[in-house]
Amino acid sequence: MSVHDDASFTLPLSVPVERKLQVALFVCPGFFLPDNIGLQTVFGVLPNVDLHLVWKNRDEIAGAPRFTTRATTTFAECPKALDVLHVPAIPPRVMEDKESLAFLAEYGGRAAWLSGVCAGALMLGAAGLLKGYRATTNFHLHDQLPYYGAIPTQGNVVEDRNRLTSGPVSGGFDLALRLIGRLWGDELARECELEMEYAPEPPYGTGSPELAGPERTARSLQRMAPLIEEMRQVGIRASRRLEIA
Amino acid sequence: MSVHDDASFTLPLSVPVERKLQVALFVCPGFFLPDNIGLQTVFGVLPNVDLHLVWKNRDEIAGAPRFTTRATTTFAECPKALDVLHVPAIPPRVMEDKESLAFLAEYGGRAAWLSGVCAGALMLGAAGLLKGYRATTNFHLHDQLPYYGAIPTQGNVVEDRNRLTSGPVSGGFDLALRLIGRLWGDELARECELEMEYAPEPPYGTGSPELAGPERTARSLQRMAPLIEEMRQVGIRASRRLEIA
Repeated sequence: MSVHDDASFTLPLSVPVERKLQVALFVCPGFFLPDNIGLQTVFGVLPNVDLHLVWKNRDEIAGAPRFTTRATTTFAECPKALDVLHVPAIPPRVMEDKESLAFLAEYGGRAAWLSGVCAGALMLGAAGLLKGYRATTNFHLHDQLPYYGAIPTQGNVVEDRNRLTSGPVSGGFDLALRLIGRLWGDELARECELEMEYAPEPPYGTGSPELAGPERTARSLQRMAPLIEEMRQVGIRASRRLEIA
Repeated sequence: MSVHDDASFTLPLSVPVERKLQVALFVCPGFFLPDNIGLQTVFGVLPNVDLHLVWKNRDEIAGAPRFTTRATTTFAECPKALDVLHVPAIPPRVMEDKESLAFLAEYGGRAAWLSGVCAGALMLGAAGLLKGYRATTNFHLHDQLPYYGAIPTQGNVVEDRNRLTSGPVSGGFDLALRLIGRLWGDELARECELEMEYAPEPPYGTGSPELAGPERTARSLQRMAPLIEEMRQVGIRASRRLEIA
């Protein structure tokens, strides 16, 4: 994991070779890169994986925080049968973009596994993919899951049938390793976790409402109130569109 | 952290306003994005930070795993006085690139704080910035630190004076939060850790040699042997150039 002669650096791990895994990560203007990086890292360094960054076109886009990139694969070019389709946090306007919602509904409905981190979990919901599923998202938005017909559930990663959702910024790593376990077996996932040396040590121990305590949590919710409210309006409109009771 | 109207999404946290922090992340063809993402996330969403992705030019480059981006700032444009200069893992050829080494030696020598993750820690060493400093890197390369005059030290993050180094793929998050604490105080860092909900739960508990056990560790070192040896040759040449005894 430490040296890379070119952008196609591949870990020399033994994986099933019958066919290439097809993994698609949703990207768009303003997408939140940290929510994708776990899956991009794990699936991007494994052999025998086609990793797609999917969007409407291959124009250069500005993501957050502060970088540019471009999709590798357009919606039209995306393989019809995906092994994994993953969605990161995206701006509210994309959460109501008809073309994006239609793509996710169609390709997500067929995908073997679906995952979302942070507001990406709500985007799965906005595409109608979480109705009746237990799910989570970051704590600021957790109470908005019912707008999408999802069953709000506590947990760093919540797995219900073939849907995995997570709130934390590191949730993409946790999700990706679980997906490797489901797709290619637990021992390969254990080896991946070692190769990446995924052994985080958060220095302050305040990375959740429970750890940070009620006062810091209340201040955070207050600071984020305008954004939380904007997302609530997105959720209310989604709930009408999806005919959630 | 969950909704972003554009690529310049900023967390509404109170930070010192006297002057903007100048934070530079090294990028280059083949750089390993996960090693930068922690700092890119934390410093990229805070107000009053100029976050620079620095390289020789602003041409589009392919990083690992499998994406393209471009620098925001060239070596020539980089602010002379940096608050933080950070280096991710980069390909062996860049570790011996004279222009890159000269840039890091000059700007790193002046920076208030220096950090490196994975082979990025060795790149700090290659620029002559770790002589006599305690340091760490990922476990595959840990025994190569002495080629650079560094004192190999165990730890998820090793901090010696103004140099912070880390091995794990999540080390950039651990480093970034520590740097926020040093620069702007522990309470702001605690708030950042909560806002990001940085509460990882590695699903397999095998993310270090100690956790994975000697057999998995030996298999990993064997798999990676060609890359480890290539890096060793880079280290041996660096040790001559730096006149390390």
